[in-house]
Amino acid sequence: MGADAATPADSALVRRSNLSLVLRRFRDEGPRTRARVADETGLNKATVSSLVAELVDRGLLREGQIERLGAVGRPGQVIELDGRRVCGIGIEVNVDYVTALIVDLGGRVVADERLPLDVPALRPDAVLDATADLVARAVSAAHRAGSTPAGVTVAVPALVDVGTGTLRFAPNFGWRDMPVARALAERLGEPPYPIRVDNDANLSALAEHVAGAGAGVRNLVYLTGEVGVGAGVISEGRLLRGSAGLSGEVGHMPLGAGTELCGCGRRGCWETTVGLGALLRMAADPKDPVRDPARDVEDRLTELRRRAEEGHERTLTALRQIGTDLGTGASVLVNLFDPELIMLGGYFAMLGDFFLADMTESLRTRIVDPNATRCEVVLSTLGFSAAARGGAHVALEGVLADPTTVPPAVPEGSERSSSLV
Amino acid sequence: MGADAATPADSALVRRSNLSLVLRRFRDEGPRTRARVADETGLNKATVSSLVAELVDRGLLREGQIERLGAVGRPGQVIELDGRRVCGIGIEVNVDYVTALIVDLGGRVVADERLPLDVPALRPDAVLDATADLVARAVSAAHRAGSTPAGVTVAVPALVDVGTGTLRFAPNFGWRDMPVARALAERLGEPPYPIRVDNDANLSALAEHVAGAGAGVRNLVYLTGEVGVGAGVISEGRLLRGSAGLSGEVGHMPLGAGTELCGCGRRGCWETTVGLGALLRMAADPKDPVRDPARDVEDRLTELRRRAEEGHERTLTALRQIGTDLGTGASVLVNLFDPELIMLGGYFAMLGDFFLADMTESLRTRIVDPNATRCEVVLSTLGFSAAARGGAHVALEGVLADPTTVPPAVPEGSERSSSLV
Repeated sequence: MGADAATPADSALVRRSNLSLVLRRFRDEGPRTRARVADETGLNKATVSSLVAELVDRGLLREGQIERLGAVGRPGQVIELDGRRVCGIGIEVNVDYVTALIVDLGGRVVADERLPLDVPALRPDAVLDATADLVARAVSAAHRAGSTPAGVTVAVPALVDVGTGTLRFAPNFGWRDMPVARALAERLGEPPYPIRVDNDANLSALAEHVAGAGAGVRNLVYLTGEVGVGAGVISEGRLLRGSAGLSGEVGHMPLGAGTELCGCGRRGCWETTVGLGALLRMAADPKDPVRDPARDVEDRLTELRRRAEEGHERTLTALRQIGTDLGTGASVLVNLFDPELIMLGGYFAMLGDFFLADMTESLRTRIVDPNATRCEVVLSTLGFSAAARGGAHVALEGVLADPTTVPPAVPEGSERSSSLV
Repeated sequence: MGADAATPADSALVRRSNLSLVLRRFRDEGPRTRARVADETGLNKATVSSLVAELVDRGLLREGQIERLGAVGRPGQVIELDGRRVCGIGIEVNVDYVTALIVDLGGRVVADERLPLDVPALRPDAVLDATADLVARAVSAAHRAGSTPAGVTVAVPALVDVGTGTLRFAPNFGWRDMPVARALAERLGEPPYPIRVDNDANLSALAEHVAGAGAGVRNLVYLTGEVGVGAGVISEGRLLRGSAGLSGEVGHMPLGAGTELCGCGRRGCWETTVGLGALLRMAADPKDPVRDPARDVEDRLTELRRRAEEGHERTLTALRQIGTDLGTGASVLVNLFDPELIMLGGYFAMLGDFFLADMTESLRTRIVDPNATRCEVVLSTLGFSAAARGGAHVALEGVLADPTTVPPAVPEGSERSSSLV
């Protein structure tokens, strides 16, 4: 429901909230007439006309085809989302790559790019330089496509203070207390769009919940399969963050045999048995090109996949072992969160068909009541782009929540131009 | 905000919702005049007077002292909660005891009782008979105190289908698919009050969140220390239940050495190293009276406590081992849920001062970032009564949500009596 009446003091707030309401309706429900929006929202027609005019002016809506289907009387002008004008930029910095993905308000991927980057081997300054360069290239690409970036969200495999955009602790980077948002804003010359930082698993879970295979599922756990393993948990439709945003750190459950040293400095962590490092160690010798961090991670996994398809014994054995250990840890998550869906992302999604049976078997043996549990395990279809996609989504949420953050496409009058000094 | 206007069709619904609003205000905020309630709720004064009259009639409010503090003009009559008229009954059936606790609407404990009962050794029918007898005695005790039971909630250490009151799986009872609510209703002659069934850890977490040491804490994990170990999780102020009410099954995390067989049929479950059974095995020989399930659990723990206070080496070593293993498992919960508080209930609360240091040490070594985490470990002050208290609370919530479930104390007029056939 919209709000028609307001005191002058909060009328700007009410206007913003109504702009948001109307814009979301066109994004979620598709083209419709002003009269229909008035019916659906309870706002009066004059208010809807004025809100639509402003959203058209800001380039977020446009006039579409005349609606004629069996209509009696004057046909209504159909209005539709103009999704091309603004976009969100999602960036992911992970252990051995950086990714950028540009998604416009209409949900279309405008451009994407991934670079191999051996983050733990580089100084943080060099990583931030490379990330800022990638953001700058993404912003240019957006502008070339006629789209204005509404915001940038950077996904990292880390504990993050979301409020300040500070990375608290990234075990597999060896980073602590890094003001990532601030550092990027400085390198980019204090840009007009907001820069946010968030945990990669949380953003991936959001991406799947909003538009991926987990769309509409109210309880899901998304597992990132990178060098580290993290979880993003959606419970009853909400992303769980915990009291200080530190939740979902599943990679360090003490389930492992304790032989390998974890990035966090401990032994026995789950990710030392199911992370990408564990798979590569089991599947290949140190000099094997699939273990070369300078090569793109997807190319290396494609090579492993080829070997598995050809029946290469060592590769298949390694994958089956990953499946068994993945099931053991996933049983803890099923027993604790009782989700409808466990979604496997990152490398799990690329190779999961070779270990899903072993994982499901080991999972079932450890769930308290496998017959009562309705949980399914599925592979993410967003793969390595999930975190960046979630980041772009968060950036676009800013526009949907407050469309006045997008400036009007055309100056409204000559007398206003003079104030644009 | 209340709602004054309504179509005839939903006016009964609006009236119930306003009765609930007004009753909660008196329960939560204390005595006040009708005029003040009108101010606070936005309901008009005539409506408030009518609602208050109905709540007085149903015995839930009463007239208190005249308010005179500096008042000009006619003094207002102060109205206050009459908490004695209705009560909630919480029952807990656990591995070696059953408990009843009666709490009235004013939050006072009217009566309580605990009986030792060796549940796994008895047939389910015998346990249900004993439980029904205890409910019947509690109902009689409530009536003798002038209070009417608004409902009964039975806590069990089990996966529960809350909607139907069916116990799905209680590993430590050896029970499956037991329609507990139905079985009790039959034994009690289909009583007028509702009988609900819920998980013991969930009810304990609610009790602590509502009125215990965890009051007002938005993220907490409550751990039950019984033969089994379960968790109730409050996240951002809400009890997490999962997709089918099966969440919080922490006792079966595969963290143990794998020597002892768990009630669930597996080995390596966390509760085989930290449950009451593990403590008793480590601290005493099989013939020791502290291992006799026919004796009251609190008496046995008091004896163990006495030994620990006297410096008995085997008891102290056992307790320190419990602390270490408790910290290992609790670290998983901190890494996954990021709570402000871990609350220890059941036997953990009675003996925790002997192992809290060991637990905290082992917890800190496994938390991903112990410096960023603000989590504290505290002992429940509700102890073994927490689950029953949570159950009584749930029963009383029914009255607060719909005060019309409490019949008027006095017939309103003779012409209405004739319709009470």
